Amino acid sequence: MLIYSLDLFGTFVFAISGTLAVTEKRLDFLGAFVMGFVTAVGGGTVRDMLLNVSPGWLTDLNYFYIILAAVVLSFLAKTGLQKLRKAFFLFDSLGIAVFTVIGLEKALHYEIALPIAILMGVMSAVTGGALRDVLTNEIPLIFRKEIYATACVLGAVLFLILQKAGVNPNFNLLLTATLITLIRIVSVKYNLALPTLKPDRKGSKKV
Amino acid sequence: MLIYSLDLFGTFVFAISGTLAVTEKRLDFLGAFVMGFVTAVGGGTVRDMLLNVSPGWLTDLNYFYIILAAVVLSFLAKTGLQKLRKAFFLFDSLGIAVFTVIGLEKALHYEIALPIAILMGVMSAVTGGALRDVLTNEIPLIFRKEIYATACVLGAVLFLILQKAGVNPNFNLLLTATLITLIRIVSVKYNLALPTLKPDRKGSKKV
Amino acid sequence: MLIYSLDLFGTFVFAISGTLAVTEKRLDFLGAFVMGFVTAVGGGTVRDMLLNVSPGWLTDLNYFYIILAAVVLSFLAKTGLQKLRKAFFLFDSLGIAVFTVIGLEKALHYEIALPIAILMGVMSAVTGGALRDVLTNEIPLIFRKEIYATACVLGAVLFLILQKAGVNPNFNLLLTATLITLIRIVSVKYNLALPTLKPDRKGSKKV
Repeated sequence: MLIYSLDLFGTFVFAISGTLAVTEKRLDFLGAFVMGFVTAVGGGTVRDMLLNVSPGWLTDLNYFYIILAAVVLSFLAKTGLQKLRKAFFLFDSLGIAVFTVIGLEKALHYEIALPIAILMGVMSAVTGGALRDVLTNEIPLIFRKEIYATACVLGAVLFLILQKAGVNPNFNLLLTATLITLIRIVSVKYNLALPTLKPDRKGSKKV
Repeated sequence: MLIYSLDLFGTFVFAISGTLAVTEKRLDFLGAFVMGFVTAVGGGTVRDMLLNVSPGWLTDLNYFYIILAAVVLSFLAKTGLQKLRKAFFLFDSLGIAVFTVIGLEKALHYEIALPIAILMGVMSAVTGGALRDVLTNEIPLIFRKEIYATACVLGAVLFLILQKAGVNPNFNLLLTATLITLIRIVSVKYNLALPTLKPDRKGSKKV
Repeated sequence: MLIYSLDLFGTFVFAISGTLAVTEKRLDFLGAFVMGFVTAVGGGTVRDMLLNVSPGWLTDLNYFYIILAAVVLSFLAKTGLQKLRKAFFLFDSLGIAVFTVIGLEKALHYEIALPIAILMGVMSAVTGGALRDVLTNEIPLIFRKEIYATACVLGAVLFLILQKAGVNPNFNLLLTATLITLIRIVSVKYNLALPTLKPDRKGSKKV
């Protein structure tokens, strides 16, 4: 029940951030709705297609309505929402944590081995945004900065360890979300990144 | 039977428009065939994968042959086809209407709720072209102009209303196609569009 | 057994070429891993989703480990690997041949008709690279040069003919790989290509 509420909450937050992210593309309402929809449910949908299961939004209309509400809100209160950037960063991190944990647990439920289950958790959290970026002709953010996906991997690992240690699932989720948020804050603040695979000449103009 | 013929017709038209749309990319024959194929069956395929059903072209070779014919025709009679742009616009609108209605009815057949079924109808009509645009590194047309997808939504709604009113299905399809074509003509002519989500500064150079 | 070993070998080679191909994008390790993963298993995954089967890497961890090894190797020995370009071209051609034959046979196993089965063989070989190119905002290579996909089609046709003629499957695979490699070498050397669909004005600046 808590997970379901958090899933809808994450869907709402992702739909808003998806809609706001494409502001510069001058999409009309329907285009923005599609973008919000893809951002919010894209990750879970790809995961479910791989697991050969029907995605939840096909049969549960709540996802549709909550995304619609998010897109309408983004149109009406765009400037206000953009001022709340810091609060949004926290909400977004919580959404990422919830999606990671849901994806991880769903994969484990279908008896997927641990490394692949972690991958599916991360995929649930980041694929929606990546699809949005592909559709708007951007290189997906996860390939560019913020060790975004790395935070999900570490969050997933922490969740598994605490689960094994018998920690209460809800509290576990909270700790996981906190870790993911902290990693993101620290990496943004100190401009941290994993080692990158650089082209041969340093200072090359290609980016 | 009529629906099946119209489905093949729509596949043919979409394959031609898909092939012609990538003229500037200097694709070879096989590349153009792949583009025609993706444009023509991409929407239905994504819909079927979501519904966990096998797409028709996997088992019914007619789709393959008709796409092959369309691509060959596009290579042989490109200039001629480009002169027929107006007739093509009508054919294309009919194709869109057919694909929307087929997608809508298929979703309803699998007991998908109405708003999602409408979404799947629209998806059947526009996803093929969107995939083609993504593959050729363009921002999908549906996000840019012509209230293309909006016409599909309104067509789907009209179809459902007339169906409820007991209108003959074939006549209903014709009326739906007429509505979609009219919306497209009017919106192109008067440069109509839904309200867009604009960036903050007006006249921004980013597009 | 041989096919399984060759499949893992092809996965390894594709993961390396996928990782090296994105060197200029300055991805971090996880981003590079995702790219290697997508390049290596993307084609087979799309094929399996179309056939409504679970992709092998979901349940067989060997694919995960071999891709991980390939990406680590790419990070540690990038310069060395880039010097082996010619050997790599051969390995890559073998990988393409293996993936084409595996995809072809899998489709035939599910009683897909011949033209579509050939298409699925080609798709198994080229879709991973195409997905990688889409994610890094490039026009997929298969649409640009080297009659890459055409070599797969011809290889698939040769394989089917020799299979019908009762040739030993392993030897058949070797001959198919040789044909694909030869076509690629000859087409690179003599700059061969299939006829392309050109824009109207020659010398147009759009490319």
